[in-house]
Amino acid sequence: MNRKNTREIERKFLVKRLPPEVKRARSYTIAQGYLAAEPDDRHVRLRKRGDAASLTFKTVDGSVREEREIQLSDKQFRALWPGTRGRRLRKVRYQIPWNDVLVEIDIYRGKNNGLIVAEVEFPNRAACRKFRPPDWFGREVTGEKRYSNIQLACE
Amino acid sequence: MNRKNTREIERKFLVKRLPPEVKRARSYTIAQGYLAAEPDDRHVRLRKRGDAASLTFKTVDGSVREEREIQLSDKQFRALWPGTRGRRLRKVRYQIPWNDVLVEIDIYRGKNNGLIVAEVEFPNRAACRKFRPPDWFGREVTGEKRYSNIQLACE
Repeated sequence: MNRKNTREIERKFLVKRLPPEVKRARSYTIAQGYLAAEPDDRHVRLRKRGDAASLTFKTVDGSVREEREIQLSDKQFRALWPGTRGRRLRKVRYQIPWNDVLVEIDIYRGKNNGLIVAEVEFPNRAACRKFRPPDWFGREVTGEKRYSNIQLACE
Repeated sequence: MNRKNTREIERKFLVKRLPPEVKRARSYTIAQGYLAAEPDDRHVRLRKRGDAASLTFKTVDGSVREEREIQLSDKQFRALWPGTRGRRLRKVRYQIPWNDVLVEIDIYRGKNNGLIVAEVEFPNRAACRKFRPPDWFGREVTGEKRYSNIQLACE
């Protein structure tokens, strides 16, 4: 859901068990790394999803994000990617429609192998507040640094 | 001199007075801003030089830099540029050949109006040590945070 240059409202949860919907969900592998990350969650991320490469700028203010993304050519991506050395992660993402929202489940690989996290993005604050997590969701970890992708990539 | 994906050795000086060579030097206007900057000088910079847009990743270790740069399309640049709000600077750069090296003089505009800085880039450490500054150079400020472009853009 990171395709738009706009502001986002998201919540993040650990996943207790994978739901049956995972079996027929769309999935793809993501490799991402961070060129620079400020302590207050302002960062520039490189991502490869299949053959599609992108560069994303994000700032975070509470649960509201400003996000700006561009697609990169393969040549552009290859020139910058070495700069993310030691700040990378890999995960498989499953997209599961759930009532009115899209739940994205990330199963981490590599050094974070075993970690499973669900992210839900909302069109507005009211929808964010009204959301009732399904019973296969575990603890909410929205805003917890420990489970930020930057932390997981750099630790 | 920021065209290569390689490591750089540079020295930076204040400029006491502009040399006569400035009159016939190549010059161009630079607008640049920072998407993200870590305290230890790891950052991502957007730059527009005339019509040419670029994105540069830099890390600094002492006087040696790792630098990776890509050219951006106008569309890519316009998508990211708003993310540098409040972290921008403008300057006019003059390029002056000086013995075996190229001296770049930056005359700052906008909020840093009046500041003039010279940068010299060297092919190796020996050339860096041997360099004798011309008499129109002022104090050396290599490595001084106060005169880093990030500091000048964000202060």
